[in-house]
Amino acid sequence: MSHKIALIGFGTVGQGLCEILIDKKEYLKSKYDFSWEIVAISDPVKGSVYCSSGLEVEKLLKLAATGTSLEEYQCQHDNCKCNFGWDALKTIKDSNADTICELAFTNVETGMPAIDHCKAAFESGKNVVTSNKGPAAVDFAGMQALADENGVKFMIEGTVVSGTPIINLVDGPLAGCEISSIKGILNGTTNYILTQMEAGMEYSTALQKDQELGYAEADPTGDVEGFDAMAKVIILANVVMNTPITAKDVEREGITGITPAMIADAKAQNARWKLIGSIEKTVNGVKAAVKPEMVPMTHPLAGIMDATNALTFATDLMGDITIVGAGAGRTETGYSILTDILAIHRNN
Amino acid sequence: MSHKIALIGFGTVGQGLCEILIDKKEYLKSKYDFSWEIVAISDPVKGSVYCSSGLEVEKLLKLAATGTSLEEYQCQHDNCKCNFGWDALKTIKDSNADTICELAFTNVETGMPAIDHCKAAFESGKNVVTSNKGPAAVDFAGMQALADENGVKFMIEGTVVSGTPIINLVDGPLAGCEISSIKGILNGTTNYILTQMEAGMEYSTALQKDQELGYAEADPTGDVEGFDAMAKVIILANVVMNTPITAKDVEREGITGITPAMIADAKAQNARWKLIGSIEKTVNGVKAAVKPEMVPMTHPLAGIMDATNALTFATDLMGDITIVGAGAGRTETGYSILTDILAIHRNN
Repeated sequence: MSHKIALIGFGTVGQGLCEILIDKKEYLKSKYDFSWEIVAISDPVKGSVYCSSGLEVEKLLKLAATGTSLEEYQCQHDNCKCNFGWDALKTIKDSNADTICELAFTNVETGMPAIDHCKAAFESGKNVVTSNKGPAAVDFAGMQALADENGVKFMIEGTVVSGTPIINLVDGPLAGCEISSIKGILNGTTNYILTQMEAGMEYSTALQKDQELGYAEADPTGDVEGFDAMAKVIILANVVMNTPITAKDVEREGITGITPAMIADAKAQNARWKLIGSIEKTVNGVKAAVKPEMVPMTHPLAGIMDATNALTFATDLMGDITIVGAGAGRTETGYSILTDILAIHRNN
Repeated sequence: MSHKIALIGFGTVGQGLCEILIDKKEYLKSKYDFSWEIVAISDPVKGSVYCSSGLEVEKLLKLAATGTSLEEYQCQHDNCKCNFGWDALKTIKDSNADTICELAFTNVETGMPAIDHCKAAFESGKNVVTSNKGPAAVDFAGMQALADENGVKFMIEGTVVSGTPIINLVDGPLAGCEISSIKGILNGTTNYILTQMEAGMEYSTALQKDQELGYAEADPTGDVEGFDAMAKVIILANVVMNTPITAKDVEREGITGITPAMIADAKAQNARWKLIGSIEKTVNGVKAAVKPEMVPMTHPLAGIMDATNALTFATDLMGDITIVGAGAGRTETGYSILTDILAIHRNN
């Protein structure tokens, strides 16, 4: 039976997911016996369409590409059963989706409206897959408990460096290991700036280049002051360390204080400045921070350049395990959603 | 219900596994609802004992530590049901184990006797977990087909750099990605020697130091001529690329030809010699090799020093993903067996 999917939000990630689902349709069927249907998309700007018998995804992508409302969708079925104009909550509650992909624009501090979307999904017996940091960063334990209570899944691979599989690495291949600390380069924008500064560029020029390449936002505060990395640290502490920390528990410092002199000094000491997110189990609970650290060149994180992300897990049975991969992109984040849907399918 | 385990071979890996199982008993129960029993151990030197109601593992470890035959084991049950002296095949066929851990000494070229052990297990409806390269390197497809036919699992995480989760990374967190190439530092001994040579040591001195540390065997041929890495390349091509290559398909060259002058020359070019195992999909099938390569310092594999292992997977959806971890050790290889048993348990 096809896995029925509803998308809440149809921006870059949702469209990226749809492109992968189309490209990989045969592969997913033959390798994992996985077949899918998109039954609904609800987007506050692009419009909303629901068909319990499944939508034609190519048509939806074409509408989005041409800036046409999804409500212009032409149903392929003889007796059209489409509903138009359903908002997110109605789509979540009343569609026949098995899994809700929560990809709406969300306030990271309050987690809204994504938290309400997740709750509605769980209470309707539907799984949630999301790349939104909000629900996991603001109330991971509450979300997980509600999902468990309703016998459904809360899957969040895409919330932490979506180009590198972190959550599923800990959950699967590292199962049975206890993790005592995590250290990581969790933000591509800042790592790119530091790489450029080491090559001789001033901070402001490097930031500008970063913005031109599309890595950094017009307002770079979230990245350069460490807020983005902080949200990821909170999620990792909750998910991997099972410790419900929040923003106030994280020491946070960005990279704006790093000077060319400091970079030269680090080089002389055979080290390199990196913005490191860290979580460490201590006798007094978990110690979490985002701040620049001078990493010795012998550490695997020291060699991570440009917009690449990397994390080192200190484990009890395997020593240090480091994983290195790309940061977020259209395909990468789309894939992080697919990998979670696939995991739900394979566990059923 | 407890997962019933039989160990074929009770050397370093088997004992390491038992130590972890004891240490982690409560953790595995509470986190994964996993409970276990060792019902049999059969070792051609240390002796053999089988109890359908479960053995006391602490007692078995003590016997092994004191060089006492396992056949001196004292059963804890009122009406002792122990059987002594069963050989590997009888233990595999006639015990009530769910899973056979195949850890016997095996000829890597012929895969024997491990292949016979695996076949007997599959035909008796039992899963196999093994760190023996033999069965997977000599006949992966045959083993997998026989396991599938009998509805059981063939799990081999421990066969390829057991201190770093490779097979399960591809199977789980990278599910849905197609992998077009793998490049890796697959042998800790040779990487340690190259690290020492870069620090100014001659090859022969570095090898000697390596042997003193216990990384290299007394006869280092398997490592330094690339045979060990070659077996891993064959397994990866079979498992990850689904291509049944054998030894004759792998171009192989060791590190004995690397000179201090070559190392200095690489340094001048901002690169570093590494013994690289590689597998690449081409229009003409798979191209596989183990040979020294001059890796540019910008590549994540260039920074991997000492006895550490690392692999880079080129994927279609996530770009390059690199994983870095320890090589094989008592705990690491023991854990690689546990992780596979746990995966079987969690998929049931």
